[in-house]
Amino acid sequence: MIRFAVEARDGAARAGRLHTPRGEVATPVFMPVGTAATVKAMTPEELIGLGAQIVLANTYHLHLRPGEAIIQRLGGLHRFMGWPRPILTDSGGYQLFSLAKTVRVTEEGARFQSHLDGTALFIGPEEAVAIQEALGADIMMCLDHLVSLPRPEAELAEAVARTTRWAERCLAARRGPGALFGIVQGGTSPELRARSAAELTALGFDGYAIGGLSVGEPPAATHAMIAATAPLLPAGKPRYVMGMGEPADLLAAIAAGVDLFDCVLPTRNARNGSLYTRTGKVSIKQARYAADPAPLDPACPCPTCTGYSRAYLRHLFVSNEILAMRLNTHHNLHFYLSLMAAARTAITEGRYAAFRKDFLATYQGGEQR
Amino acid sequence: MIRFAVEARDGAARAGRLHTPRGEVATPVFMPVGTAATVKAMTPEELIGLGAQIVLANTYHLHLRPGEAIIQRLGGLHRFMGWPRPILTDSGGYQLFSLAKTVRVTEEGARFQSHLDGTALFIGPEEAVAIQEALGADIMMCLDHLVSLPRPEAELAEAVARTTRWAERCLAARRGPGALFGIVQGGTSPELRARSAAELTALGFDGYAIGGLSVGEPPAATHAMIAATAPLLPAGKPRYVMGMGEPADLLAAIAAGVDLFDCVLPTRNARNGSLYTRTGKVSIKQARYAADPAPLDPACPCPTCTGYSRAYLRHLFVSNEILAMRLNTHHNLHFYLSLMAAARTAITEGRYAAFRKDFLATYQGGEQR
Repeated sequence: MIRFAVEARDGAARAGRLHTPRGEVATPVFMPVGTAATVKAMTPEELIGLGAQIVLANTYHLHLRPGEAIIQRLGGLHRFMGWPRPILTDSGGYQLFSLAKTVRVTEEGARFQSHLDGTALFIGPEEAVAIQEALGADIMMCLDHLVSLPRPEAELAEAVARTTRWAERCLAARRGPGALFGIVQGGTSPELRARSAAELTALGFDGYAIGGLSVGEPPAATHAMIAATAPLLPAGKPRYVMGMGEPADLLAAIAAGVDLFDCVLPTRNARNGSLYTRTGKVSIKQARYAADPAPLDPACPCPTCTGYSRAYLRHLFVSNEILAMRLNTHHNLHFYLSLMAAARTAITEGRYAAFRKDFLATYQGGEQR
Repeated sequence: MIRFAVEARDGAARAGRLHTPRGEVATPVFMPVGTAATVKAMTPEELIGLGAQIVLANTYHLHLRPGEAIIQRLGGLHRFMGWPRPILTDSGGYQLFSLAKTVRVTEEGARFQSHLDGTALFIGPEEAVAIQEALGADIMMCLDHLVSLPRPEAELAEAVARTTRWAERCLAARRGPGALFGIVQGGTSPELRARSAAELTALGFDGYAIGGLSVGEPPAATHAMIAATAPLLPAGKPRYVMGMGEPADLLAAIAAGVDLFDCVLPTRNARNGSLYTRTGKVSIKQARYAADPAPLDPACPCPTCTGYSRAYLRHLFVSNEILAMRLNTHHNLHFYLSLMAAARTAITEGRYAAFRKDFLATYQGGEQR
């Protein structure tokens, strides 16, 4: 089981520490996304070198391929992918609603077809927990009922109610020592968010996620919902905003008291040649970098910036070389992980608001590149 | 300039040492192929960790993209790609004849269109040397006239004559300190090979390649030509068979007295999931490996084999993950580089024939996988 301690507060922002059987995680923390049991383009050794403390893996994808039975037989997900530190697995809910074909959701769960080969499959709350336990996740997520926005209030209310019923079934289905997080739903309705938070808190989870965001609503509504929901969650438990976001989004959520994050943006953007620097994002494919001898970000100590020029990074990218994906991913993850570490330090030193303001001034005001 | 010393002989096989301004190269040596200024999927640090002593880069590809002017402006190819050890560049001859569109070869050189964007370009002997000097190659190759096989004797003879004339122009065009190798042509005609070797030797190069092989002739003919040509080349200069081959091909050529090799096979096969082991090649995508907890090659000390199971390698490959390309390439290059190191040791210890026989017995007699 896990234990969470808040070590410092700065306004609503918290610096915490998550104790797990596989080691400690200092929060706020960004979890690199390892969808298919690999953080794309990276080795576990490189992730550890970057200071990654915990990664996310994907229940839906691993259930489809290679299947949790194989991973369990091979000693669990940590051993399978060579990652010794904690792993959080999502429940598959998001992928069921975004990737799977011909999904039919009933009270029982979700019937769907694999997007890989069309196989008919079923995942309900009990199956979601059983798969995550077979994988050997340190932190598991409840299966939630996700809806895209906007939706009529009545539908949102029913999604909240079903999410609570499924959360109860997930709790009852748990057999092993893995921690289990509930997921707050409720769209952009503060009342429904409050109801969902209250119902899940009453059930009692090891941590709480704020889910069902970035699914069609405007960014301001996302931030408003996070700010409204976070204070309703138990102060002594970790809070997790799923699948978000750009640096400014993370810093806003941290200010609201959120502790855990995951997002495909740094890794996916890296593969698309969009690179994070202190002064904003750089599209490395631009012709202006063709003969540029400078590092991507002269102030960045990562191997990509200390070893290579923008000209070389551009050449690799336009040549579609695998090394482009590697160097870009390494850099972007370094950026996200460093940002979280700096945010944590700022919180412990009681200067988070100034840190956030300064970062954004440089990041958003940087030379337009 | 370079200097070459034969340190041990075992039959016709040689263990040598190539002294270059960027360090020594112990031969026989395999040069990983870094076509576009990157050995696909690998970092320079990893190559050095594998004991790679020299890499090959591609004049044709780098001329097209990013262009030698940019690389020269950025401090040369070594600095551009972050590789501190020697680099051999091919002349572009092979790519002109295999990749470029609408090639028209005259005595002057080759007019062609870029396979990337159709730009009309020209490379003659002088241009080939100028490009390689701009790149800063430690070893440059003459532009040769390559023909696919079979061909009428008269055409082969004319290709040999033109290759000699072009080699003379390459020598005259050299301005810098880079070493220059001549390339023996002559198809599968021992007489033409002998004539080509004699003409090039008379001109006097820093080393000699045996080119125009593996272009349509049967493998036995390839080996026969290498065995017939190698003894005709100066004993005190390095001998290089270009673009070959499988492990058995390399061992046969070493027995004939060849010192340098390059080939895309280990890296390209890696990306296709074909992996070299002591007991033969493994196609890692096969279903039989889906739950196999064993390392790819239990006797192999490379990071791929010490860190991961066949099941994980298969999963990564069928999931088309970048990490599959990385781990597979790392392993295959380890295999090739280790094989060359073992061959060198066997030569210095006077047991090369037995080494080759034992290796092939295990490799070709291995469990059919």
